[in-house]
Amino acid sequence: MPSDGVISLTTDFGHDDPYVGIMKAVILRRFPAARIVDLTHQVPPFRPEIAGLWLGLSCRWFPAGSLHIAVVDPGVGTDRRITLQASGDHRFLAPDNGLADEIARHVRIRSCRHVDTSRLPAAGVSGTFHGRDIFAPLAAGLAAGELRAEDVGPETRDLVPSTLPQPRTSGGTVAGEILFADHFGNLLTNIPAALVGDAAASARCGGRRFRFVRTYGDASPDEPVALIDSFGLLELACRNADAARTLGLGPGDRVTVSGSG
Amino acid sequence: MPSDGVISLTTDFGHDDPYVGIMKAVILRRFPAARIVDLTHQVPPFRPEIAGLWLGLSCRWFPAGSLHIAVVDPGVGTDRRITLQASGDHRFLAPDNGLADEIARHVRIRSCRHVDTSRLPAAGVSGTFHGRDIFAPLAAGLAAGELRAEDVGPETRDLVPSTLPQPRTSGGTVAGEILFADHFGNLLTNIPAALVGDAAASARCGGRRFRFVRTYGDASPDEPVALIDSFGLLELACRNADAARTLGLGPGDRVTVSGSG
Amino acid sequence: MPSDGVISLTTDFGHDDPYVGIMKAVILRRFPAARIVDLTHQVPPFRPEIAGLWLGLSCRWFPAGSLHIAVVDPGVGTDRRITLQASGDHRFLAPDNGLADEIARHVRIRSCRHVDTSRLPAAGVSGTFHGRDIFAPLAAGLAAGELRAEDVGPETRDLVPSTLPQPRTSGGTVAGEILFADHFGNLLTNIPAALVGDAAASARCGGRRFRFVRTYGDASPDEPVALIDSFGLLELACRNADAARTLGLGPGDRVTVSGSG
Repeated sequence: MPSDGVISLTTDFGHDDPYVGIMKAVILRRFPAARIVDLTHQVPPFRPEIAGLWLGLSCRWFPAGSLHIAVVDPGVGTDRRITLQASGDHRFLAPDNGLADEIARHVRIRSCRHVDTSRLPAAGVSGTFHGRDIFAPLAAGLAAGELRAEDVGPETRDLVPSTLPQPRTSGGTVAGEILFADHFGNLLTNIPAALVGDAAASARCGGRRFRFVRTYGDASPDEPVALIDSFGLLELACRNADAARTLGLGPGDRVTVSGSG
Repeated sequence: MPSDGVISLTTDFGHDDPYVGIMKAVILRRFPAARIVDLTHQVPPFRPEIAGLWLGLSCRWFPAGSLHIAVVDPGVGTDRRITLQASGDHRFLAPDNGLADEIARHVRIRSCRHVDTSRLPAAGVSGTFHGRDIFAPLAAGLAAGELRAEDVGPETRDLVPSTLPQPRTSGGTVAGEILFADHFGNLLTNIPAALVGDAAASARCGGRRFRFVRTYGDASPDEPVALIDSFGLLELACRNADAARTLGLGPGDRVTVSGSG
Repeated sequence: MPSDGVISLTTDFGHDDPYVGIMKAVILRRFPAARIVDLTHQVPPFRPEIAGLWLGLSCRWFPAGSLHIAVVDPGVGTDRRITLQASGDHRFLAPDNGLADEIARHVRIRSCRHVDTSRLPAAGVSGTFHGRDIFAPLAAGLAAGELRAEDVGPETRDLVPSTLPQPRTSGGTVAGEILFADHFGNLLTNIPAALVGDAAASARCGGRRFRFVRTYGDASPDEPVALIDSFGLLELACRNADAARTLGLGPGDRVTVSGSG
């Protein structure tokens, strides 16, 4: 797969420390033409599957040929494995801790390999920062065309499964849950538009009813509403207000959608 | 206007979510040579005029030919309009909700158009994320030279006015207010240096007097002082301390400046 | 020294305001080929030496030829001086307030100059934002090859010393302290691996004992452990938990390491 030089980064490193900047430095040292895009560095710590979800939902807007690094990696330095996955247009480097499998729930993966770290230079690999010591140099080598996927390690079908909950349908009702609140306090759920259907009358969560609207401005001020968000997922929101705070709702809260019938 | 490929982004999207990264991906997909600069993504939510102020004050330091995207857009998906403004050196894409007009308070605008969204591909335009679906592709097309301003929509003089308060002068006194506290807790006001004049003896706010100094180091430790900040606006500060927290002052608090006479 | 166009930024400006974006604009206006990397903008305000520490520890991962700007500068606009230091591979622009000297504790400096600001254009230099008005244009000029180090100012050996505490060894015990907690709540100390030695049995801090492990995954859940971090410094941590919060420890707390003998 030809690279167009775009490398995206998704981590739980935050912005306080120099960790992200150092990963970029390592990439630029090996691949000066890289164009690095931060997807987010505020994945909740120790929640690799949220990183997989964001990246799986977001990657389709990147140029064909992009390479995506995702590092939420509480098992760094242990024998947890690292995966290189490829779809038709994108490549993904991620730890095999549910993150890689969650990506594969959203993207049609054609090839999946485990990185054979015995093929990598062992010198300078720390026990605590593989983003710098393994992910960044591997990504740079792949994006620069110096490494091929088959150089990295053997194909596999055996990934640690994502445990992110999936919605269930029963009778005319879909049951799912809130996955997280975004910066605006909008509540993103695991219920895709395809399960909601056109006839949906309302969503329920926390004993409250949410009327379906097309966009925020269709709601009355402070009215709790449900809509299909820009990723194609059911979202609960309040117009011009932080729904998570106003309604006291958050990750794990159960959401149901019923038809109008 | 020739583009130099610099595109700046000013939003209220924060850094927790992948929204900003996705806008960059869309820009790079259409215009691979773009050099994207984040101005800030921490505009207070639902305060479009603050985004207009920051961008209006900041754009003069960008290279001639830069294109600036500002998205603080609570009316996304409704019939609120989008503007493309051009000064001699810069172009600005922003929602017409006070943001565009606030930019025009600080920059000499030569041409202002409303984006005719009926000319844009409708497919894939969500109801909630026009930053990704309209602003980013338009900006990329314009910066790449594929689109001309006249392709975007008709000229207009009719902008939704900014309601950001303006300072007033009466007798020898200027009355304004605090617009926001920055990361250091310095309090930026809406009073420009030109209204303060050389003879200003002191500023007053919250029952307190602020001596004028040239820079922070001219103050005694913890002394509340007034100075002209690097944008040419009156600022209230405390040396080596967070003035907003220390003095209990914030946006909306009234500030007066009196001459020495 | 040839430049490879990479310029890193380390500041205490945070991400709320447009200050960092404006510095990048100034750099790109003078040096369009610059590739700018944010190291961090969340250095604690008024702690220049922490910026020097992060940059000193991090710069070795950057490409040879990189130029690093560090601005934590409470004395901006006073007669505090600005330094340009060069190692074999890197250049550093920083205020002479402990920051520059702290860099020199970690990097072998071959040349150190004070910037002669009388040689710079005085027009447009504010009293409060030298990052924009002095550091950024100087860095761009140097990285672009338009300015040479000898154009900037005279050589010096006289730097304001860093007061960041150094560890002390006495008998078989090393005594140091916690410098800061990172985004994960891991506690970084000023004790380098070389002082810890292979025989170290345990570290102590706040009346608590920390067993030495190689990486987080070697600890029992919530067990307080000590390890050598990816910069080669002693770190105190809890597996999958925020050690700073869980243990109530933070900057300034004393840490001792004793051998196993």
